Amino acid sequence: MNAEIIAVGSELLTPFRTDTNSLYLTDQLNQLGVEVIFKSVVGDDLKRLVAAAQHALFRSEIIIFSGGLGPTEDDLTREAVAEALGIPLRRDPEVLTAIERRFASRGWKMSANNAKQADILEGATVLPNANGTAPGQWLSGKVEGRERIIILLPGPPHELKALFEAECRERLRAKVPPAHIATRTLKVAMLGESHVDARIAPIYKRYSSVQTTILAGAGEIEVHFKSRGETLDAAQAAVDEVADAIEDELGDAVYSRDGQSLEQIVGYWLQMRGATLAVAESCSGGLLAERITSVSGSSRYFVGGAVVYSNPLKTELAGVPADMIERHGAVSREVAAALAEGIRYRCEATLGVGITGVAGPTGGTATKPVGLVYHALASDSGTEVIERNFPGDRKRIRRFASAMALDMVRKKLM
Amino acid sequence: MNAEIIAVGSELLTPFRTDTNSLYLTDQLNQLGVEVIFKSVVGDDLKRLVAAAQHALFRSEIIIFSGGLGPTEDDLTREAVAEALGIPLRRDPEVLTAIERRFASRGWKMSANNAKQADILEGATVLPNANGTAPGQWLSGKVEGRERIIILLPGPPHELKALFEAECRERLRAKVPPAHIATRTLKVAMLGESHVDARIAPIYKRYSSVQTTILAGAGEIEVHFKSRGETLDAAQAAVDEVADAIEDELGDAVYSRDGQSLEQIVGYWLQMRGATLAVAESCSGGLLAERITSVSGSSRYFVGGAVVYSNPLKTELAGVPADMIERHGAVSREVAAALAEGIRYRCEATLGVGITGVAGPTGGTATKPVGLVYHALASDSGTEVIERNFPGDRKRIRRFASAMALDMVRKKLM
Repeated sequence: MNAEIIAVGSELLTPFRTDTNSLYLTDQLNQLGVEVIFKSVVGDDLKRLVAAAQHALFRSEIIIFSGGLGPTEDDLTREAVAEALGIPLRRDPEVLTAIERRFASRGWKMSANNAKQADILEGATVLPNANGTAPGQWLSGKVEGRERIIILLPGPPHELKALFEAECRERLRAKVPPAHIATRTLKVAMLGESHVDARIAPIYKRYSSVQTTILAGAGEIEVHFKSRGETLDAAQAAVDEVADAIEDELGDAVYSRDGQSLEQIVGYWLQMRGATLAVAESCSGGLLAERITSVSGSSRYFVGGAVVYSNPLKTELAGVPADMIERHGAVSREVAAALAEGIRYRCEATLGVGITGVAGPTGGTATKPVGLVYHALASDSGTEVIERNFPGDRKRIRRFASAMALDMVRKKLM
Repeated sequence: MNAEIIAVGSELLTPFRTDTNSLYLTDQLNQLGVEVIFKSVVGDDLKRLVAAAQHALFRSEIIIFSGGLGPTEDDLTREAVAEALGIPLRRDPEVLTAIERRFASRGWKMSANNAKQADILEGATVLPNANGTAPGQWLSGKVEGRERIIILLPGPPHELKALFEAECRERLRAKVPPAHIATRTLKVAMLGESHVDARIAPIYKRYSSVQTTILAGAGEIEVHFKSRGETLDAAQAAVDEVADAIEDELGDAVYSRDGQSLEQIVGYWLQMRGATLAVAESCSGGLLAERITSVSGSSRYFVGGAVVYSNPLKTELAGVPADMIERHGAVSREVAAALAEGIRYRCEATLGVGITGVAGPTGGTATKPVGLVYHALASDSGTEVIERNFPGDRKRIRRFASAMALDMVRKKLM
């Protein structure tokens, strides 16, 4: 079967916003064996929305709308789909009560405009939204003689994802002919994209039945494999063969085989080793701690740390000798090591990490340019320091630095 | 005038890639006074491309295609546009010679498939591509009685941008009626989307010439205004009138009038007041420090802080009395205040912030549910604590908590 995704919202037609919901939805649909053949973005304009819905109903078997379900006058998805299908909207008293209750539970009075979120396409199933006010809607049946599935989802990504998982995935699976698609992802730390491709292209080019895609981020590369087979086992065998060969080639630069993030892998190894971690960050400014604590349950192995932006604080919170900073400069191998050792001691952690560098765009010098970062890892077997010159802007340099530090912890423990 | 952008390529229909060319093109078009009314992504499929081109020709005055101009069998944009317009493609001998020369200059022999890149729509102007093999194409004239401009651009972003700037911008400016578009953005902290809309809709609805768009994030709302006028001054006056009226209505919840982020505004006020800031974070895990230090130059006012995930570290780094944690729990009004006061004292900062809460998804209890966060701000005039129950997942709760803390600092200083 095929599908198309229509993102609704004038803000998605500005230079500032891009539709990311469709990436998630495409992944989910592909896993069900559904191909996405068309994506579009339409503004908050009833006539254009109706036309877009009509084209979609003609062209595609599954049509997913994201956005335009809110309480404002600009939220027109319900009205547009009703008009395109030539069916009425009915205000659902149960949904209305649920919306009123949602407001009451927060001690707020519901303003009148919210009531339109209870307008349901005739014949549609209401999909409860655990994370927001507007419910989703599901409608399936014949449209001008062709079987169609029409799904309305809220635009905020966390609402859309939770609602798709809870209410749409299994409903779709029941409607879609069983397809056997196997996927696998390898994640690789701290190697360059062209370096990785040069090493693995001779391998993946031998397997024409497996689609291989390389995606590069700052310090992390993902290699995606996808194959469709007569059976799931056959598809999986094809994917595994190429993935295993590539994993052999890249060795311990591969940190994940099952989609886990670098943060999650570091958490896994810390728990496996019964170890704890503390960090002292200068140029990364809290990003490393933020990444580690983005994992639920990280309090089991992450003690905490210090963001030591000023030099006195490097001394006060992480015990870096003031004369060392004066002698070598705050961005130096010595201070990175002292940050790692000091925070480890201070927090009584198994491992201590120190990061100091020049994130830019200002602050660079001839000898210490923007992008220069020192990463240190202290343990009971001593302290290791890695110096790197990262390319890119402030955001990218900070991202690289945090990935490098996470990868040092991973390699220490694995 | 209006425009639409069609990105061509099956890789843009995978879960991994998103069309970013359209953001650049939208910005360029808006600056010329052209509104983008529709964007779509179509795979490398002739029939679907033809249908998409036909819809576009019916709907929009300017149609820009990006991608699908390469030498492979999958590169079908030229063929699809020719078919949609009912005109032939002609192989241009001059373009062919230029392509052959490009190969020869690199010492390569041109393979036969490259010749199709010299196929030009009858009547089109060839747009030389300084950075690649396939030239762009420009065609303008009547299509079924309506004036249309059709532009074909290569997909690689560096080729597309250079070609648009060198060959399309001035050509478009000459075709487009001089239009003057003014925009403005207000950013609002810590109010709900429907609450904001209920308050401001009666105002913006009075101004039909100004387009108002509301965008909601966790703890931050953006209200975008756009207007088109006979002169830039007229457009700006219209935008300013509605924006000023809405700013009056929302009062000090408006933190930015010129696109600056909450982090930048907090930095601005800290510098204005000659003040410094230190933070002690528990549930936000470094996100607040990361946001503050994402601003270049933040070392002028941000001293640093502590991520005190474990209870002993709350005592060790931020001086929270151990018996206070035992008596009230780590997630409490008292501990938030002690974190703010302790880190302020420890870092010798003008202001200290403390955050403690339950980010979830685990760790919630009946009395201290997931989403409960205490935010404290300590200064020489005492300590203020705000308790909030945030909705959403771990990521969203942490984002809300950091926005709340930033907003407390802003309100204290402004």
